[in-house]
Amino acid sequence: MTHDNAVAVTVHPAWLPDAALAPLRELPSAVLGSGPCLDTARAELGASPSASTADAALVVAAVSDVGSPASVGLTQLPEVPAGGHAIVRTADRTVVLGADGPAALRGLYAVVREVAVARLSGVAPGPGTVLSAPEQPLRMLDHWDNVAVHPVMGQVERGYSGGSIFYADGEVRADLTRVRDYARLLAATGVEAVGINNVNVHAREARLLTDGLGDVARIADVFRGYGIRIFLSVSFASPRLLGGLDSADPLDPDVAAWWASAADRVYAAVPDFGGFLVKADSEGQPGPFAYGRSHADGANMLAAALRPHGGTVLWRAFVYNHRQDWRDRRTDRARAAYDHFAPLDGTFDDNVVLQVKHGPMDFQVREPLSPVLAAMPRTRLALELQVTQEYTGQQRHVCYLAPAWREYLGFRLDGARSVASIVAGAGGGGAPAGGVAAVSNVGDDEFWTGHPLAQANLYAFGRLAWDSTLTAEDVLDEWIALTFAGAAGPDLARVRPALHEVMDGSCQRYEGYTAPLGVGFMVTPGTHGGPSVDGYEYSPWGTYHFADRDGIGVDRSSATGTGFAGQFPSPWRETYESVETCPDELLLFFHHVPYSHVLGSGKTVVQHIYDSRADAVEGLGGVEAAWESLADLVGSAVPVAFDARVRERLDGQRASAVEWRDQVRSYFWRKSGVKDASGRVVY
Amino acid sequence: MTHDNAVAVTVHPAWLPDAALAPLRELPSAVLGSGPCLDTARAELGASPSASTADAALVVAAVSDVGSPASVGLTQLPEVPAGGHAIVRTADRTVVLGADGPAALRGLYAVVREVAVARLSGVAPGPGTVLSAPEQPLRMLDHWDNVAVHPVMGQVERGYSGGSIFYADGEVRADLTRVRDYARLLAATGVEAVGINNVNVHAREARLLTDGLGDVARIADVFRGYGIRIFLSVSFASPRLLGGLDSADPLDPDVAAWWASAADRVYAAVPDFGGFLVKADSEGQPGPFAYGRSHADGANMLAAALRPHGGTVLWRAFVYNHRQDWRDRRTDRARAAYDHFAPLDGTFDDNVVLQVKHGPMDFQVREPLSPVLAAMPRTRLALELQVTQEYTGQQRHVCYLAPAWREYLGFRLDGARSVASIVAGAGGGGAPAGGVAAVSNVGDDEFWTGHPLAQANLYAFGRLAWDSTLTAEDVLDEWIALTFAGAAGPDLARVRPALHEVMDGSCQRYEGYTAPLGVGFMVTPGTHGGPSVDGYEYSPWGTYHFADRDGIGVDRSSATGTGFAGQFPSPWRETYESVETCPDELLLFFHHVPYSHVLGSGKTVVQHIYDSRADAVEGLGGVEAAWESLADLVGSAVPVAFDARVRERLDGQRASAVEWRDQVRSYFWRKSGVKDASGRVVY
Repeated sequence: MTHDNAVAVTVHPAWLPDAALAPLRELPSAVLGSGPCLDTARAELGASPSASTADAALVVAAVSDVGSPASVGLTQLPEVPAGGHAIVRTADRTVVLGADGPAALRGLYAVVREVAVARLSGVAPGPGTVLSAPEQPLRMLDHWDNVAVHPVMGQVERGYSGGSIFYADGEVRADLTRVRDYARLLAATGVEAVGINNVNVHAREARLLTDGLGDVARIADVFRGYGIRIFLSVSFASPRLLGGLDSADPLDPDVAAWWASAADRVYAAVPDFGGFLVKADSEGQPGPFAYGRSHADGANMLAAALRPHGGTVLWRAFVYNHRQDWRDRRTDRARAAYDHFAPLDGTFDDNVVLQVKHGPMDFQVREPLSPVLAAMPRTRLALELQVTQEYTGQQRHVCYLAPAWREYLGFRLDGARSVASIVAGAGGGGAPAGGVAAVSNVGDDEFWTGHPLAQANLYAFGRLAWDSTLTAEDVLDEWIALTFAGAAGPDLARVRPALHEVMDGSCQRYEGYTAPLGVGFMVTPGTHGGPSVDGYEYSPWGTYHFADRDGIGVDRSSATGTGFAGQFPSPWRETYESVETCPDELLLFFHHVPYSHVLGSGKTVVQHIYDSRADAVEGLGGVEAAWESLADLVGSAVPVAFDARVRERLDGQRASAVEWRDQVRSYFWRKSGVKDASGRVVY
Repeated sequence: MTHDNAVAVTVHPAWLPDAALAPLRELPSAVLGSGPCLDTARAELGASPSASTADAALVVAAVSDVGSPASVGLTQLPEVPAGGHAIVRTADRTVVLGADGPAALRGLYAVVREVAVARLSGVAPGPGTVLSAPEQPLRMLDHWDNVAVHPVMGQVERGYSGGSIFYADGEVRADLTRVRDYARLLAATGVEAVGINNVNVHAREARLLTDGLGDVARIADVFRGYGIRIFLSVSFASPRLLGGLDSADPLDPDVAAWWASAADRVYAAVPDFGGFLVKADSEGQPGPFAYGRSHADGANMLAAALRPHGGTVLWRAFVYNHRQDWRDRRTDRARAAYDHFAPLDGTFDDNVVLQVKHGPMDFQVREPLSPVLAAMPRTRLALELQVTQEYTGQQRHVCYLAPAWREYLGFRLDGARSVASIVAGAGGGGAPAGGVAAVSNVGDDEFWTGHPLAQANLYAFGRLAWDSTLTAEDVLDEWIALTFAGAAGPDLARVRPALHEVMDGSCQRYEGYTAPLGVGFMVTPGTHGGPSVDGYEYSPWGTYHFADRDGIGVDRSSATGTGFAGQFPSPWRETYESVETCPDELLLFFHHVPYSHVLGSGKTVVQHIYDSRADAVEGLGGVEAAWESLADLVGSAVPVAFDARVRERLDGQRASAVEWRDQVRSYFWRKSGVKDASGRVVY
């Protein structure tokens, strides 16, 4: 397969099919002003540059381009919020006013969404004004894409959707059509930034910063038309690797000068460049520790290079010892980010954002929130999520992640402030906003995301980054309304409940047949796909469950364990500290308990393990039946290829889930010797 | 590194250093006759083609080239055994008479060995005649070398000694100097055949049979000078892959004709070609099952193609279901070869040799012998050993395999006939001899074998294939005497006991800290290096230990288990059937027993697991001390680079052995809950 040829008519339109745009394209419309995003809006509507607002039923504009209210057919102009948009509906027209060109384009896509949702719900939006402001200023997708195929990690690290849409054959693609289509999809969700290369920066990828700038600029040009800035992942060792210096010491003036010069060159090529994304001193990547410097020293040096241009450093907090000794139960990977970074609060410059994974481990389906998010009030923080399903089914299992993300964003870490408010800079500590970032799940797959239903995760990320108060169910409704906008009304009314049946509880179901009660991992080493209960148990990676014949779990209490629970503010510190108050779903994350420990459900831990694995697999029957119920719509509401791919994935999910169920059940039966009270077969 | 440049002065001479040849090169010598091997012998001695036997103290000849006894200075000619040689020592001369040119050359190397050993023992050979005949007609090394680097398995599958000496950069090497050096080393051990490519035949390698024949002929030319034939591993699907046919059905006349024609072309290029080595219907390789045909159908069809040229089919018996369900305890991989092949006894043509791995599983450090070897009296059988240390330390651990091989060869499978006698055709069932084959451990490493001491395994294989009655200790003495022929006498006297200390018990020591009591595996999936107790426990590969909280082991009895024990003839059938009579070292291979089961040593199984892992690691102290005792000889008797490599490997061995010890001990402590009575720390 040659990747560039994959830019073909067979690519699925995701949540922007022509049918979703058609109702607007039928209206007489006018787009005021010019600029990359306003030109895009005009093209989306097929509006003439000379169209008169007087005749238009749909007007799009950046508020700064609007002279008088009358010029857009209104009696007064609304207060357009920063970065956001207003949608004004009158008897004869809809006016979209953006804070700027990108915001106006996003506002147009908001109208597309509203029209589609109205068709689903049967409730059309009435006259009036709707203001919409983004909750997070940074709404970014990180691509773990390698330019050259990596011998172990492939082209897209933790990618399950084919090759990269950016790179092929060791180079940036000549044809960026798929990148433009992707930018369009993202703009419709509210995403405004993209990191275009893997945070593990290998030799070829490091050179994007220097001799690859021409190609980087081509990518930026595409994204610019959709209001999306680009970031580069850079190697902290670049001055040595690329600059011929013999050091990358952040306090070395030559090093700082090299970075300043590098930043100058980047901005000369990409004036609206976002900044650098850095994974330093993490899993083998170089960093300031090599020179006895702190992470603040490292980040601030890069920040200084970017400051003249308005750029930002996104510095990842994912720092831990990945050469840990499994024999040493005092070392706790969960503690590492806090131990490294909390003492540095207040020392990062104001164009540094510390990017913190949602949990203290690594994107498990169930973890507590990271206490780092509560511990650095004077630091700009960004929450990092993972859209690509590394540990949540690798796009072979349905796992709609929005419910989990919404829970993280709404979680009140100190009992008062939600995570969303903290990263939005409304946490009260004085630090400006950081934002939200996530690892993309997109590749050059015909359905973008391998599993067609995994498109909903990408969609939901952008929407929840914009507004974390949206419910996961409403976001799913939006995605259904847009994606199946071409379906006849009665068909759409059947697709909707079927997809809710398949997706609403999918994440809990996945949790149900995989690692129990928050203990995490139990995955095949390397690939992280499929079960291997002891796969990481005697490894240096710090991810253990400590199951023995009597019990299981990691004691992270302060009283007798690693003390991780004590990194949380009240009330969570106390809640997690005690076996009695720790939520059952996190019990084994915080405590080592006997198999006979009784959960809130009244079941013992081991019986819960037995039952939940089997119940979750049985639950797949409902999923399969729900999809099967749409069989007569295949070829009409549901494209044939879409259906075929979903079925193939559902088959694979069942096989994998059965394997999970049986391995986990057998493992604990062999270890505990406790019979399954349900009488189900244990192998 | 460019591989071809590795043909350099730094390559270690292994067991043929100049010092080993020097005593003979100092003598006036004559080599009678001509031919590739006699020319080689002449060159080895630096003898003039016109040298007169009258003046020679050393005469080498093929017996057919000798006119009268007087022409070689003897009063009568000895009866030279088929394939072997006679060494006649008189007062003034040594006469080497080979059954043919290759045998004469091997006889010359035997004299080299005798001279070196005499120096070690202080006992010079006296006058008289020594006759030496090979016990096995086939003494072959199989190379699992890929022409093109395989994305998963690399250049040499299960190779731990660098790249291939045959191939580099996807082609047969232009410079075959290392191949010639290798051929010379092999000739000195008695090896007479080499399979030059991997039994897993990938696309590039399959083409050696067709458009690669010119290169194959170049390799054959090199080996011919050392009396070594070459074999090709072929894909059973070749008629489809290479011939454009739409079938590889062995009963299809077009298929048979294609193979006959392919064989004609091979023999036109390589007149002394050995034949085909075939892995069929095994681990994904194609075979006759796809056409509903038997393995006899497949092998006999190839045999017919080779028969006009005198060639042989080596057909591997390593056939089993590698997609087994771990839940199904009735399916037993150990049974597979017998179940597939024993019913076919008597149906293979006489130029087919069935190549059988020594154990029923896969080259574990401890397995019973394969019952297939006793079950096919009317079939030519070859024993397959593994010199490359896939499961025995991967040339990072010292593991001198000769004691184990000698045990296999001498094992009396039906209480009377040894394995060596069965494969030598002296088993009484009427089948002619098969022989012995082994997977080579050689690569383009400067020491040939990664670990310098692993050279001794390669040496020992050839010697034991020639004569299985040699003791492992005597073979090690030979290897020491030759390898360190340049050492001063008193130094050599110190090297000898030090190396025996390091190597004699090394295989038992490795067994001691790895999988216990014959249960096998417990290795990291994929690489097979390092411990992972449950690594293959829930896999489709059929290699399980079934440890639970109460006990461990695989019930292969006929009474209650898979019935594998019943595949053996008496008395082993009865011996293995019963827990009481089964040897402890194979207990867990044949039986599932409680941890409290008491072994012959008086220890329980679990205490044995605890103690043996720790004892074996402690035993490494003696190994390290023995090597350290030679420190003052580094730079004289022991080359500096040789010492550095051995030390690096000993360090790595200790680290790996500690990991094995701790993981296995912790695993069984967690599972059994039984305290280690020795009081040693368990993590």
